[in-house]
Amino acid sequence: MVVIQDSIQIKTREMSITDITSQVQKVISTSNINTGTVNVFNVGSTATISTIEHESGLLADLPELLQKLIPAGIGYKHDITWNDDNGHSHLRATIMGPSTTIPFNEGMLMCGTWQQICHIEFDHKPRNRKIIITVIGE
Amino acid sequence: MVVIQDSIQIKTREMSITDITSQVQKVISTSNINTGTVNVFNVGSTATISTIEHESGLLADLPELLQKLIPAGIGYKHDITWNDDNGHSHLRATIMGPSTTIPFNEGMLMCGTWQQICHIEFDHKPRNRKIIITVIGE
Amino acid sequence: MVVIQDSIQIKTREMSITDITSQVQKVISTSNINTGTVNVFNVGSTATISTIEHESGLLADLPELLQKLIPAGIGYKHDITWNDDNGHSHLRATIMGPSTTIPFNEGMLMCGTWQQICHIEFDHKPRNRKIIITVIGE
Repeated sequence: MVVIQDSIQIKTREMSITDITSQVQKVISTSNINTGTVNVFNVGSTATISTIEHESGLLADLPELLQKLIPAGIGYKHDITWNDDNGHSHLRATIMGPSTTIPFNEGMLMCGTWQQICHIEFDHKPRNRKIIITVIGE
Repeated sequence: MVVIQDSIQIKTREMSITDITSQVQKVISTSNINTGTVNVFNVGSTATISTIEHESGLLADLPELLQKLIPAGIGYKHDITWNDDNGHSHLRATIMGPSTTIPFNEGMLMCGTWQQICHIEFDHKPRNRKIIITVIGE
Repeated sequence: MVVIQDSIQIKTREMSITDITSQVQKVISTSNINTGTVNVFNVGSTATISTIEHESGLLADLPELLQKLIPAGIGYKHDITWNDDNGHSHLRATIMGPSTTIPFNEGMLMCGTWQQICHIEFDHKPRNRKIIITVIGE
């Protein structure tokens, strides 16, 4: 059993969804670990990691849904206190959580064909994001 | 330290909640691993894994709540593009995430008495689901 | 590779958010494990673990948002069947999931500066909670 930890950096736009599957797969492939799990973690409290079918329809539907459920700029106490207008970004991130863990076998992620690992940026401005990838297995 | 990976197959109905606790426990018991964590992952982008008190009230309440928050058939771009009517299923699954990780000790899951591990099917038709169970520990 | 498992007990109030970062860090530090992941799991089906910027604005915003999205006391079948008034607590916990997994390096959690690990109590009365902390790494 071994653990291999690496990180990737991505530049995001406001409320955007980035497919990071190939970057996660690369860390697994480089590790030469055959079987185990990979944890993918967003550093910071206004973005999340999940899986999605990364196609243009859903890339529009998800932000629209979130704007309906957890709208920006409706007088959150966070915004009033800190004057930074991203209370909704924090709330979305806390509800969805900071990380996702995915199994792999024979060195390959076990996601479905239409299931990509994605970083979801909730902040209201472009960010430089650090994502920690931890592979555990043998 | 070892890793043991297995999978189970279940047949689901539209928007249904299946208790898979005993199947997850069986993989842990068979592994002979004493202490660690088990990751339970749904292959595919229209279902999730979580925990719930698996009783008839909540089994009705959760679908009703989700239909209110993330309704089916309200003109999602995913549905228009692909004509497959399950945009809501994808959105629910992305928000809840594809997997859950649970600790165990002395070979037994550490869930509460009223806390069952469940597969939650969001798709709008019956599916054959593959669930990956990865046990890591010693 | 080793696994170290410990638990903490906290007393919570109705719909409250408790910062448990230092307690999770302490388990990692005591374990003397350098690199890996820590899984933090709530035993029971009416609370969750996530990350948040633990400041007074968001501590008020999150309960307010959840009361809007998943209100208490609107005739859930769970409440009618069991007469215990916490159907909304169960629904919130199932949607957010029972655990979160966070990476660490050189014995230190890799959360952002404004990203605390929190226990979120959804129940409608004070609870004594057991939280399982499982550190895996080398």
